[in-house]
Amino acid sequence: MDVMKTATAALGCVEPEAEDFSDQMAKIIRLLGAFPSFLVYWHHWHKNGKEICLKSEETTIAGFILERLKEKKPLAVEVKAMNAMLTLYAEHEFNASTFANRITASTLSDIYSCMTTGIGTLKGHLHGGANEVAIKFVLQFDNVEHALKSVDELFAKKEKIMGFGHRVYRNLDPRSPVGFELAKELKELETSDPKLFDIATAIRDKVKAEKGLPDNIDFFGGLIYHYMEIERLYYTPLFIMSRAAGWAAHAFEQRANNRIIRPSSEYTGPEPRAFVPLKDRK
Amino acid sequence: MDVMKTATAALGCVEPEAEDFSDQMAKIIRLLGAFPSFLVYWHHWHKNGKEICLKSEETTIAGFILERLKEKKPLAVEVKAMNAMLTLYAEHEFNASTFANRITASTLSDIYSCMTTGIGTLKGHLHGGANEVAIKFVLQFDNVEHALKSVDELFAKKEKIMGFGHRVYRNLDPRSPVGFELAKELKELETSDPKLFDIATAIRDKVKAEKGLPDNIDFFGGLIYHYMEIERLYYTPLFIMSRAAGWAAHAFEQRANNRIIRPSSEYTGPEPRAFVPLKDRK
Repeated sequence: MDVMKTATAALGCVEPEAEDFSDQMAKIIRLLGAFPSFLVYWHHWHKNGKEICLKSEETTIAGFILERLKEKKPLAVEVKAMNAMLTLYAEHEFNASTFANRITASTLSDIYSCMTTGIGTLKGHLHGGANEVAIKFVLQFDNVEHALKSVDELFAKKEKIMGFGHRVYRNLDPRSPVGFELAKELKELETSDPKLFDIATAIRDKVKAEKGLPDNIDFFGGLIYHYMEIERLYYTPLFIMSRAAGWAAHAFEQRANNRIIRPSSEYTGPEPRAFVPLKDRK
Repeated sequence: MDVMKTATAALGCVEPEAEDFSDQMAKIIRLLGAFPSFLVYWHHWHKNGKEICLKSEETTIAGFILERLKEKKPLAVEVKAMNAMLTLYAEHEFNASTFANRITASTLSDIYSCMTTGIGTLKGHLHGGANEVAIKFVLQFDNVEHALKSVDELFAKKEKIMGFGHRVYRNLDPRSPVGFELAKELKELETSDPKLFDIATAIRDKVKAEKGLPDNIDFFGGLIYHYMEIERLYYTPLFIMSRAAGWAAHAFEQRANNRIIRPSSEYTGPEPRAFVPLKDRK
C-alpha cells in the first residue's frame, strides 16, 4: 500500500493534472492503467531483484495484472474472475476512503491527491483487508466439521467472523452471489483445493442460519484470489485498482457541484480558565 | 506540495510506523524535523541542480528552514516571526485537511497516510494558499490611495478579497493581531518595503469599517513571508510544517477513542427502473 501511494504521488509530480481539471478523465484512465504496473514492478524487484518488462499481450487490466504478476498466460476463467472482482469492488457509496477522497476533492486539490487520500484511508485494517482475514480464517480448517465446531466456539465467545454482515446491506450483499459462483468455477482448477470451497460454503450457511448474517463480498472474495494464487499482501492493492474508479467518479461529482466539506466541531473540554501570566505560573 | 506528499509517502515505505502505533509520537517528531529538509533539498536541487547539505547551526525548526533555504544566518526577528507563524498555523479544529486526516486515522491506517491525506487536502486552493493570494493583492498597489480606490471597485463588483472573514471567527481572528505586530517589526528590515505594510493596514481598516469583516491570519501572514523573502510557492508547504502537528494531535485523539468515520449517503437519483436484459437493449 505504501508503494502504491508513493508511486501515485510521484506520478503526480511528473505528470500533474491541468489546473482547470480539463484532463481529469485522461489522468484517471492513465492511473488505472498504471496502478497494476506499480504493483507488479515492485513485486518482481522486491522479491527477486528483477526489473520486469511492463509489456504484455493481454488486452484487459485484469489479464495484465495476472499475466505480469505470475509471468504466465492466465486462463480465461481467471481473467473473467479478476475482471469481475475489479468491477464488484469498484464503487460503494460513502465508505471511509471515498468520503475522505471527496473532502480532498472539495478543496479543489488535484486528482492524484484525491487518490493518495483514498489509498491511505483504504490502508487501515478497519476498511481494506477484510478479504485477507476471511481467507486466513477459512484456511485454518482441515475439513467442514472442524470449521463448524470452531464457528460454534466463536459464537459462544461472541466473537466476530470477518466477511459477514454489512453496514449498508441487511439482507444480502448483491455482490456475494457473483463471488460465490466465481469461487465455484475456480475450485475446479488443477491448482485449487476444492475442499476450501466446501468449508467456506458450510461456514456461510451456518452463520446465515444461526445469526441471520449474510456473507459479504469479502468472504468468497478472499477465496477467489487464493484460488488464483495471488498472495494475500496484494488483495488490498487490487482493491485500489478497482475502487480508484469509484473514487474518481466521486471526485468528479464533487468538483461539478462543489462546496468545501468542513464540519464544525463542538468543544467539550474544560470551561475557560483565568489567564495566568507566564512569570506567575508554577 | 507534490514533492512534500511524495517524500512523506516514501519515508513511510522505509521507516514504517509500528502496527500498534506505540511509536506514533517518535514518527511525528521525526516527520516535523524532516519536512523542512524535503523542501529545502528540493529547492536547491530544482533551482540550481545543487545537492545541499542538511546540517545547520540553527537549533529551531524555524531557524533551520530560514538558514538552509536562504543559505545565510537568519536575523533573530526572522526566526521569531517564523516560529510564531509555525505556532499560529499549527491547529485549527475541523478544517478540511484535519477532518480528512481524521477519517484516514479512523480506519486505523498509519500516521504517514494521515499526513499524506492532510497534505493532499491542504493543497487545494480553497484551503491552503489564501496568504499567497492576499500578498499578491497587496503587491499590485503603488500607494495607499491606489489600493483604497481598487477596494472600492471590488466592493462595487461585490468581489471577495482574500484574507478577510473566517468561518469560525465572526469578530476577530485571534491570530491576526500577532501577525500584524510581526509584520510591523519586519517592515523595519533593510530589505523590506515599509509601504506595503501601510497599504495592507489601510486595506484592513477599510474592509473592517465598511464591510465589518475582520482580517484573518492569512492577510498579514502573506506579508510576513514576503518580508522574509520567501517565495510564494513555499507558503503552503510552510503551512504543512506547522499544521502537521495539529493533524497528528487529531489522529492520536481519533485513535485513542476510535470509531470509523463513514457517513451514509442519501440517494436522490432516478427511481428503480424495469430491468431490460442486455440482448433487448437498444
